[in-house]
Amino acid sequence: MEKLFASIITIGDELLIGQVIDTNSTWMAQQLNLIGVQVIRRVAVGDQWDEIWQAIDEESKKASIILITGGLGPTADDITKPLLCEYFGGTMQMHQPTLDHVTNIFENILKRPMIDRNRKQAEVPDNCIVLRNEKGTAPGMLFKKDGKIFVSLPGVPHEMKGIMKKEVLPLIPTLFKTSFIEHRTLLTYGIGESFLAERIAETEQALPPHIKLAYLPNYGLVRLRLTASGIDKETLQKEIDHQFEALKLAVGEYLIADKDIPMEQVVGNLLMERNASISTAESCTGGYIAHLLTSRPGSSAYYKGSIVSYANEIKQQLLKVSDETILNEGAVSEQAVIQMAKECLQLMNTDYSIAVSGIMGPDGGTEAKPVGTVWIAVADKNEVATKQFHFRYDRERNITLTATNALNFLRMLIVDNH
Amino acid sequence: MEKLFASIITIGDELLIGQVIDTNSTWMAQQLNLIGVQVIRRVAVGDQWDEIWQAIDEESKKASIILITGGLGPTADDITKPLLCEYFGGTMQMHQPTLDHVTNIFENILKRPMIDRNRKQAEVPDNCIVLRNEKGTAPGMLFKKDGKIFVSLPGVPHEMKGIMKKEVLPLIPTLFKTSFIEHRTLLTYGIGESFLAERIAETEQALPPHIKLAYLPNYGLVRLRLTASGIDKETLQKEIDHQFEALKLAVGEYLIADKDIPMEQVVGNLLMERNASISTAESCTGGYIAHLLTSRPGSSAYYKGSIVSYANEIKQQLLKVSDETILNEGAVSEQAVIQMAKECLQLMNTDYSIAVSGIMGPDGGTEAKPVGTVWIAVADKNEVATKQFHFRYDRERNITLTATNALNFLRMLIVDNH
Repeated sequence: MEKLFASIITIGDELLIGQVIDTNSTWMAQQLNLIGVQVIRRVAVGDQWDEIWQAIDEESKKASIILITGGLGPTADDITKPLLCEYFGGTMQMHQPTLDHVTNIFENILKRPMIDRNRKQAEVPDNCIVLRNEKGTAPGMLFKKDGKIFVSLPGVPHEMKGIMKKEVLPLIPTLFKTSFIEHRTLLTYGIGESFLAERIAETEQALPPHIKLAYLPNYGLVRLRLTASGIDKETLQKEIDHQFEALKLAVGEYLIADKDIPMEQVVGNLLMERNASISTAESCTGGYIAHLLTSRPGSSAYYKGSIVSYANEIKQQLLKVSDETILNEGAVSEQAVIQMAKECLQLMNTDYSIAVSGIMGPDGGTEAKPVGTVWIAVADKNEVATKQFHFRYDRERNITLTATNALNFLRMLIVDNH
Repeated sequence: MEKLFASIITIGDELLIGQVIDTNSTWMAQQLNLIGVQVIRRVAVGDQWDEIWQAIDEESKKASIILITGGLGPTADDITKPLLCEYFGGTMQMHQPTLDHVTNIFENILKRPMIDRNRKQAEVPDNCIVLRNEKGTAPGMLFKKDGKIFVSLPGVPHEMKGIMKKEVLPLIPTLFKTSFIEHRTLLTYGIGESFLAERIAETEQALPPHIKLAYLPNYGLVRLRLTASGIDKETLQKEIDHQFEALKLAVGEYLIADKDIPMEQVVGNLLMERNASISTAESCTGGYIAHLLTSRPGSSAYYKGSIVSYANEIKQQLLKVSDETILNEGAVSEQAVIQMAKECLQLMNTDYSIAVSGIMGPDGGTEAKPVGTVWIAVADKNEVATKQFHFRYDRERNITLTATNALNFLRMLIVDNH
């Protein structure tokens, strides 16, 4: 089967001066992928007539589905709608159901008088299919030309998502024959990208041509993603599952999850499965481990709390790090994190605890303990394990790496205990 | 002076299936903007020879600077380097300084043996200028053709940023005539974008045509940025400084900083000036306020620590929230945050404290306390001030808004005390 390609065009000067991060395209790509549409390009252009016109021209040569977001708001700098009208040779006319919808929003929800600018939002080219925007005033529009479809959506994320889910995504399989796409992702830890490649070389070479492997390294983790496409869903799933099992075997002890989830969720899942609780005693990460763990909904089921002991006196008073340890070995030492982890476990009455202390930079390093020196301890009721790290990056990355490694170190303790 | 245009090409299937959010382009666009280069397009393509080739072809018709990120890792799915070699008609050869650098990383930092794949990273086309990658093994490459430059950078954000800062951004003004661009940014808080626009309307209208004003709203803050461009640096700076003073006057009491710094730095600066210390007692933000405050180098001068009291028992035991409060008013209540802030101030022996408790969602809301309900208290030795908020976003954004508002609320307490 021929592949069905889509291209995403995002419109807005704010994307070109780096004022906003484009999360719309990411979401749209995910959704399209799930229904077997392959996004072949993403293009961002400014609020300029010629640029938008050219982009639509060019992308329509490459894809059958062209999704356009942005440039539909009520302010004067929006030119997308008149441009689309001209591009597809239509004339603007008032769309009564949209006008009723906009009027209703102003009368009953915003409780503000409508101005001309708002009324104009209900005007659409007469040659488009209007896509109802339940969450806002600017309607979506769908144009057909030469067997391709062109969909224009507002740039406000929740409005765009609403129209995509209700209107666009259900429509595509009725207009095009789509193939199935399946992904499987696993997470590895503790092995570099190139060594991992050596290790799984045979498995990679044995992959059939319609199953691709990608390496996605990030902060010491390497994700491996298999992507398969084909016409028979059942066969495809069987094939990719088979290859995925082979890949997991090849990865061996470096495998930490067979789903694409962050480390804090790997740890969170392990804790949930065991009905176990955790607390943290953080110095150099300054609350970042706590933040990661609590960023996940439902984390109160296992996360109890943290003592962020940035100052030494807090380590001494609240976490019972002894004066001798501070004096003789310093706050960044094996003894300090052992005492922190033990006291944290007791004080918070949890099954596991993590303690970290280190020098994140740019200042504060010494010859004996340069910037990037980190001690990590993880504890349960029976044991305390420690590990020293030397990171050599900037402050932000040192903090992230310390947190990720601390979580991974706890993961190892949990799994060994199992 | 003619405008200098750049186009950014990002390579990687992960961008087209929505597996990662493209933050590289955003950062690059910001940086280019600061040196007077206008990004005209951003394009994302997959790891496909033809797609990459075509994208380079097309973008070079539209811009003088073509920045390419991604596709340079050591694994097999990377095709960018051989493609660039062929595109610009070179041959691959070993680059000794890069080989020395890669060898050094393996021998002294990673302490792992190098394999062929790693050595290959030091091979580059013989017709490019090699850009040293201090933070990784894949070098950047710069090609020149028809008066345009083509820069290929690794996709790992900190490696890309390192090469951009050290090599690419300083080089551009030496290769092209760029006009001087000066920016001045101020931060406002507590006034909406449209009201702010009314307030500063006269100042805005009085701006000369070569000085532009932009509104950058984010999480309750509105940044105002003046951008001036011209050929005489000294005149330009005088003019923009003059307009910036007028703008500050017009903004009046809503001004919180005359630099583009985050709220945690505004607060950090105020504390440093006063030689004052702070501690935090966090429930719903789960350590995020501590993380923000400690993300800044030198924060140990004012930040002492935090009790992250996610579980109620931690609030009761460590922060002395009374059983009556928990029973009668709940953990998300004015009384709870008052007790948390007071005990935190005492326990950590700081000049100021912040306490927050709320429901971040998606679950845990009730009719009386829906998701987004937050109580914030800030304290010094004389008083405790409280404030209730109702946010209506997703968990991530609710956490960010709670943290930013808590920091701003403390800022108000500090400034009034002064």
